[in-house]
Amino acid sequence: MTFQNLHHADRPLLLPNAWDFASAAALHAAGFAAIGTTSLGVAAAAGLPDGEGATRDETVALARRIVGLPVPVTVDIESGFGADVRELAAELAALGVAGVNIEDGRPGGVLADPVEQAGLVRAAKEGGPGLFVNARVDTHWLGVAKESTVDRARRYLDAGADGVFVPGLALEREIAAVVAAVDAPLNVLHVPALGLRRLGELGVRRVSTGSLLFRAALHAAVTTACQVREGEPVADGIPSYADAQGLAAGAPWSARDR
Amino acid sequence: MTFQNLHHADRPLLLPNAWDFASAAALHAAGFAAIGTTSLGVAAAAGLPDGEGATRDETVALARRIVGLPVPVTVDIESGFGADVRELAAELAALGVAGVNIEDGRPGGVLADPVEQAGLVRAAKEGGPGLFVNARVDTHWLGVAKESTVDRARRYLDAGADGVFVPGLALEREIAAVVAAVDAPLNVLHVPALGLRRLGELGVRRVSTGSLLFRAALHAAVTTACQVREGEPVADGIPSYADAQGLAAGAPWSARDR
Repeated sequence: MTFQNLHHADRPLLLPNAWDFASAAALHAAGFAAIGTTSLGVAAAAGLPDGEGATRDETVALARRIVGLPVPVTVDIESGFGADVRELAAELAALGVAGVNIEDGRPGGVLADPVEQAGLVRAAKEGGPGLFVNARVDTHWLGVAKESTVDRARRYLDAGADGVFVPGLALEREIAAVVAAVDAPLNVLHVPALGLRRLGELGVRRVSTGSLLFRAALHAAVTTACQVREGEPVADGIPSYADAQGLAAGAPWSARDR
Repeated sequence: MTFQNLHHADRPLLLPNAWDFASAAALHAAGFAAIGTTSLGVAAAAGLPDGEGATRDETVALARRIVGLPVPVTVDIESGFGADVRELAAELAALGVAGVNIEDGRPGGVLADPVEQAGLVRAAKEGGPGLFVNARVDTHWLGVAKESTVDRARRYLDAGADGVFVPGLALEREIAAVVAAVDAPLNVLHVPALGLRRLGELGVRRVSTGSLLFRAALHAAVTTACQVREGEPVADGIPSYADAQGLAAGAPWSARDR
């Protein structure tokens, strides 16, 4: 199934977000149909700030590493890293990336001018006509100008976006309102109180985990180190050295307990 | 306390092993006195095999990122990546790295000739005279020529090593025998059945987590993604976006539940 078609299946596309090759390979091995990236994870792994345009090189390097996985890959390019977005999109498309996320939030918690942002969306689409360009509207994420969400979404769609991502959108009535007003697949972050099924009933087409998996991973690493320090047992089911070593070779991840 | 002195404290030095900036920063924030790296984690994160000399660039890049943390950092250089070990050690020392691990295991599960390996240890020490050079003896890790463990350890110490690491050494009598025969701090991998206190009583001076934290992290990421997919609750205590974003700025990690 193409990446585009995954947005029109019976259930919303659950897109887990990776930050390095190992996390992407392990998520693929666990059966996810497509893999995204988390800009927070990519930035933090490199010791750089998220959302400030600092990680163009790390993002392209990660894309290069994960496009070899036999699933579509979509890449979070923040707001384009202050780079030439057309060129960046073309570079990612040439690597074999299936989609990009491009956001209208800017450092300092402000929103881009929507006309300027539509220009970035257009540049991404021109650079990679085959990319699924997911236009992220950060009104709810930043808690700023929420009333402009639909207007922004429509402008980005007019500029060529294939889908709209509104992280932070979490209330049923607000989700339903955006679905009704926007003629493209709506992506939201995982909403624990609703769950995939309910989000699907509301018309959501794609659900991202954002930085959750990265944060869960770091939390587990620190928790495990503290357990060793305190002489406590560590979690059950942690895969073996051989399992982890096999990821680069495409071996199944922890197949025994899935 | 210097990194050298941490090998002569009341309890063994528990050295947690990181694979990227975020894991190192989170472990530092959790109170660990020094940070190591895991070659498996570094390799898998980059989609490369471990122990095959493929990750010199990634290892130096990681060192560069984590030496800014206010704790000693020791770097796993496998068997030197087939590079000029004197030059590599000098480069790492210049970055501010406190120590290196260098191993006598080779691709295919064989051991290096001990004379050749002693030459690599000498090169590391010459390149970075201030580095704590931890000579890893892979007899128990590979299950090959275990009877040569002490002889190998002594040769590497004669060549200038500051400590000896025998991963896979896990039986009390075998640990005690190496401690008695080797006149330098002994490092072993975490042995769940013994624990830090007992390892300390046996004379072990340093305990590494190896790839355990990396594997625990990946396991948690995949488990969390599957929980979202199945509509199950995710783990408690996962730090927030702001906590993770703050790591690059030196903010405390998950301080609220430690």
